[in-house]
Amino acid sequence: MTCLEEALRDSAAAVNAKLDALIPTSKDLDGRLFKAMRYSIMAGGKRLRPFLVLSAADLFDVPRDWSIPPAAAIEMVHTYSLVHGDLPAMDDDDLRRNRPTVHVAFNEATAILAGDTLLTLAFEILGDDLTHRDASVRIELVCALARAAGSQGMVGGQMRDLEGESSGLNLDTITDMQRLKTGALLEFACFAGARLGGASVKDLSALRGYARNIGLAFQITDDLLDAQSTTARAGKRTRKDAGQGKATFVAVLGFAGAKDKAETLIQNAIEHLAPFGEHADNLRQAAGYILQRQN
Amino acid sequence: MTCLEEALRDSAAAVNAKLDALIPTSKDLDGRLFKAMRYSIMAGGKRLRPFLVLSAADLFDVPRDWSIPPAAAIEMVHTYSLVHGDLPAMDDDDLRRNRPTVHVAFNEATAILAGDTLLTLAFEILGDDLTHRDASVRIELVCALARAAGSQGMVGGQMRDLEGESSGLNLDTITDMQRLKTGALLEFACFAGARLGGASVKDLSALRGYARNIGLAFQITDDLLDAQSTTARAGKRTRKDAGQGKATFVAVLGFAGAKDKAETLIQNAIEHLAPFGEHADNLRQAAGYILQRQN
Repeated sequence: MTCLEEALRDSAAAVNAKLDALIPTSKDLDGRLFKAMRYSIMAGGKRLRPFLVLSAADLFDVPRDWSIPPAAAIEMVHTYSLVHGDLPAMDDDDLRRNRPTVHVAFNEATAILAGDTLLTLAFEILGDDLTHRDASVRIELVCALARAAGSQGMVGGQMRDLEGESSGLNLDTITDMQRLKTGALLEFACFAGARLGGASVKDLSALRGYARNIGLAFQITDDLLDAQSTTARAGKRTRKDAGQGKATFVAVLGFAGAKDKAETLIQNAIEHLAPFGEHADNLRQAAGYILQRQN
Repeated sequence: MTCLEEALRDSAAAVNAKLDALIPTSKDLDGRLFKAMRYSIMAGGKRLRPFLVLSAADLFDVPRDWSIPPAAAIEMVHTYSLVHGDLPAMDDDDLRRNRPTVHVAFNEATAILAGDTLLTLAFEILGDDLTHRDASVRIELVCALARAAGSQGMVGGQMRDLEGESSGLNLDTITDMQRLKTGALLEFACFAGARLGGASVKDLSALRGYARNIGLAFQITDDLLDAQSTTARAGKRTRKDAGQGKATFVAVLGFAGAKDKAETLIQNAIEHLAPFGEHADNLRQAAGYILQRQN
């Protein structure tokens, strides 16, 4: 096991334990909702966004008691976006993390409500005084998450993606769309960890540069995987994008061009970490992992 | 025009102007999302929840600059719950406020995303420093809204309602379900207004008593209207509940029993306002209005 694999595993274990503690357990008539929340979020996954929160927080010696709750909150927002995005009216996916999607395992209404409550719970967690003793830091996280996840962030990107299916996208518009759809939440993950540690404006800016580059690289490798991977390896339906006529980085840049672009972005991301020296090794390795990942 | 009608009209005008300013305007590929957000929230409606925020805030001489943003935020959360609740997988309604519902006017994906962003924007607004200068007050509102709207509040109530369709409900379980589904947000509206004004624990408790009673009365009159009203007058499909075999207060208590129950609840609500004297006349009249309303 590499250092990164070990660090990812430890981070995922800590965040999973927190998620398990944060999501209500089943009782009576609410049972179905809580079960669906757990089913969607406890299905494994790389927990990349939580890892970015913890690794960025570690740069500033933030206690894990502070960084784990926001890490769990970001995973909730990510999961909610997957649950709603998989719905028949959206991407209509039936497989996610090697299991039936929530609306298949439960039903559509439950999937809609489970997504809604995961989003809502994320804000409650960021607001909790266990996350940070200073209310002004917590409120800054709440507002930053709302911007990253909202109509001018993640959901805005999802909308552009859906619209783009019919209107066609070029490299610039795909890049803009992905910065919102995937990038905004990855950027928030790095910001949240650093902000908890009172990072300087300069450090926050360096991390923003890192996050923007890995965000775009992440989406390009997603497109590459979608084009070449098998469903069994990816744990979700692949080769869907081309079938739906979606404009992807691979469609616009070609396979080799997309690969080159991802490599350049990862190099840029790593350059932004220079000021942090070896303390940023986890973030450096995470960048490398994004390039090599198989699912 | 009665005093209440005038106060409701003024409050709605102020909140509508704020909503208009808060929701992004259309541009390019985001256009559809912003249009759907506006379509859903600018469709009129009584703006009862914002009125409760402003009226509770007025008890403590809170500047309107502080009370209007949370009032707008609560209307966003209410609207999001209607947009998602009207979806085919949920209540499958095609008419709301005398217009086609969002998924009919746009499409299902847009309705899902518009609801998601309205919820998200509500938290951003509560967190904004224009809402209150004290971050600890803002974070308290964020957490209280998350609890009121989440799995152990409004969405938990929606889930119980859907489950109840198949499992059957009695008076106690209907009451519990409605306290969550409708009551929690009405209670938050009163709490938010009062909290902005630094209300005492005793005053907050009196307003909670008021809100809980009007919340349940509101749902009972909703059931009464559904049973007797016409679609034209209500602005939405009526007599749906009986057709779907839903357990309602009318089904359990009978028409006269439900009416008596609502009257008792409104009397109780008004008794809770005694400590505030004539300053609470707007809240008193709002309680009376809930009993008399025609839509």
